[in-house]
Amino acid sequence: MKALVAIDSFKGSFSSAEAAAIVAQVFRQYGIDSTGVTLADGGEGTSEAFLANQRGGRWEYAMVHDPCGRLIKAKYAFVPDERVAMIDAAMASGIQSVKTDVGFVNPVMTSSAGTGELIMAASRQGATKIIVGLGGTGTTDAGIGLMGALGAKLYDSYNQLLPANISSINLIDHIDLSEIATKRLQLVACTDVDGPLTGTAGAVQMFGPQKGLTDANLKDFERWFQHFAQQVDPINQGQLAGDGAAGGMGFALRLLGASVVPGFQMMSDVAQLADKIAATDVVITGEGQLDHQSPHGKLPVQVAQTARQFQKPCLCVAGSIQLTPSEVHAAGFTTTLSLIQQVTDLERAIREGKQNLRLLMERVAPLLLLLESKNV
Amino acid sequence: MKALVAIDSFKGSFSSAEAAAIVAQVFRQYGIDSTGVTLADGGEGTSEAFLANQRGGRWEYAMVHDPCGRLIKAKYAFVPDERVAMIDAAMASGIQSVKTDVGFVNPVMTSSAGTGELIMAASRQGATKIIVGLGGTGTTDAGIGLMGALGAKLYDSYNQLLPANISSINLIDHIDLSEIATKRLQLVACTDVDGPLTGTAGAVQMFGPQKGLTDANLKDFERWFQHFAQQVDPINQGQLAGDGAAGGMGFALRLLGASVVPGFQMMSDVAQLADKIAATDVVITGEGQLDHQSPHGKLPVQVAQTARQFQKPCLCVAGSIQLTPSEVHAAGFTTTLSLIQQVTDLERAIREGKQNLRLLMERVAPLLLLLESKNV
Repeated sequence: MKALVAIDSFKGSFSSAEAAAIVAQVFRQYGIDSTGVTLADGGEGTSEAFLANQRGGRWEYAMVHDPCGRLIKAKYAFVPDERVAMIDAAMASGIQSVKTDVGFVNPVMTSSAGTGELIMAASRQGATKIIVGLGGTGTTDAGIGLMGALGAKLYDSYNQLLPANISSINLIDHIDLSEIATKRLQLVACTDVDGPLTGTAGAVQMFGPQKGLTDANLKDFERWFQHFAQQVDPINQGQLAGDGAAGGMGFALRLLGASVVPGFQMMSDVAQLADKIAATDVVITGEGQLDHQSPHGKLPVQVAQTARQFQKPCLCVAGSIQLTPSEVHAAGFTTTLSLIQQVTDLERAIREGKQNLRLLMERVAPLLLLLESKNV
Repeated sequence: MKALVAIDSFKGSFSSAEAAAIVAQVFRQYGIDSTGVTLADGGEGTSEAFLANQRGGRWEYAMVHDPCGRLIKAKYAFVPDERVAMIDAAMASGIQSVKTDVGFVNPVMTSSAGTGELIMAASRQGATKIIVGLGGTGTTDAGIGLMGALGAKLYDSYNQLLPANISSINLIDHIDLSEIATKRLQLVACTDVDGPLTGTAGAVQMFGPQKGLTDANLKDFERWFQHFAQQVDPINQGQLAGDGAAGGMGFALRLLGASVVPGFQMMSDVAQLADKIAATDVVITGEGQLDHQSPHGKLPVQVAQTARQFQKPCLCVAGSIQLTPSEVHAAGFTTTLSLIQQVTDLERAIREGKQNLRLLMERVAPLLLLLESKNV
């Protein structure tokens, strides 16, 4: 009996790697051969998952500007032999940098330049392929800061060079990418959301409010983004899937020649998920809360869909299960079980997450063994 | 895929029959053929379970004296074709009759006579085999009331006839069973506990306190019971398994010629449990609380032991699981899962017991189906 374990982190309880280790330890006692696979969906932690799946990879560090212009030390994953780097945009331009004790930094003052600087650093380090994970950022500047850091030039209608930040956006008439530093690089943008730059599912309306956009400036931003998209992307006008990722960095990277790939797809390729599922008997996945957002591309559901392609049973463990059994089935899971197996409150359930996972796996393992033999 | 369902009642949530119906309804949706079997362990509800397993059986009623001497209407199960009756001692001499708003009726004032009267009633109805389930009683009179009601005569050392109640116990020198009414009957005592009459695991010390014995009279009762056992049962002195059941009614029935059978064994014979387990693919059992008492003969563990004999997987569902996975395995279960699958408090868990059972079965069914086919 072989099990493949691809459990997302449970916030406050355990990381993905810890979950895999716990399951492996329990399963070993039952003679079940367990392999952990670290996945990510382009959101925070993607570079860490990338590194976990690459031999010879290591962290590299660079000083970059955070969204508010402060110099910070940011890290990225680098695999020297393959000359590949994987950057989490959140490391340079993360949401944590724009939060204050009383709310958010004014979005007009923030910039994605740091992510561009991190790409530059990876390039100087020798990377020829640079993958950028776009989740967890705090900027909403249509990626203008990033473009500027990589050498893009922004001009107004009088052909006057404009500073590369959001304050210029309404004046931008055209851009010059002829001297960008990434011309000879293979850029890959890894998206964890598939929204366009503008519109109700876009970077401003859908994701702006959680990064500090308020009723007072939301309409201005939307109008500016529309103007920018019309001027520099007349054909698609920022409406391609992923253009809205990371406050518009998805759009900017596409303009710079990046291929845009859903984060889960990229990571499952890197982790050779399909091959591993094909070689296993059962797949164990999970996330803290299995809810109605889950079927819209959350990690365990994508794992389940892959498992279903290979006709492998897929068990999902969760802290909280909001889906009905038929929704669970439709999402691709064989079934789902809760880590909670006793009267408890939420705080305690989170605190005891690791031991609850261990206990549930000890209860599940004998059922999995039945798949091998009907004898007990 | 065939499932046999033998779930004990969950106090406050559902009966055994309701549990079987819920599981059957869910399993039908998944194409699993489910058979319910109503079991009991000699405790309360044994006659009801007996009736559920007997064609042509019915309830009969009789007026009898409760432990405090009040006339009450009590029922017992009767199968005319087979001339078999099944009596729950608790129907006549139940614990509910000795509880008051402020505590218990003085145990010196209570009597098991009503159970004897119920045996008489069943005999008059035509029963030639009478099974007495000994759980749930409120008397601790060494079965003297029962013996008296059936015609046993108690004498002191001066050969004076004594009234057949606990007040006489210390004076009893010998008994005369030559005129008992059950001479031509086949009596079966069904025990749910296997303790002796006296000693630390006996009727007085182990079970007396929960029926109203206090520190003030516990030692007297123990001494009286020892005296009684020495006088009327010189060889075994009340030390056989089951003598301590029902405050000593087990002892009294044995003296009256009853065979003593563990309740679960009797009921599993009646319900043809072994045959049914041999014909199923999986056994589902369960009880409200799976704890350290469970391995000592509680119903689900006995079901599991039978399932193991036939090498059938046995899943135990429980409200609360106090056993470790290895204890669960040692008890005979393949595994156990909790009805609780979310953050909740005890009151709510009990109130939502039915829907939690339904939900858990909806989560378990797809796993059972995997046993038939590895395709999902």
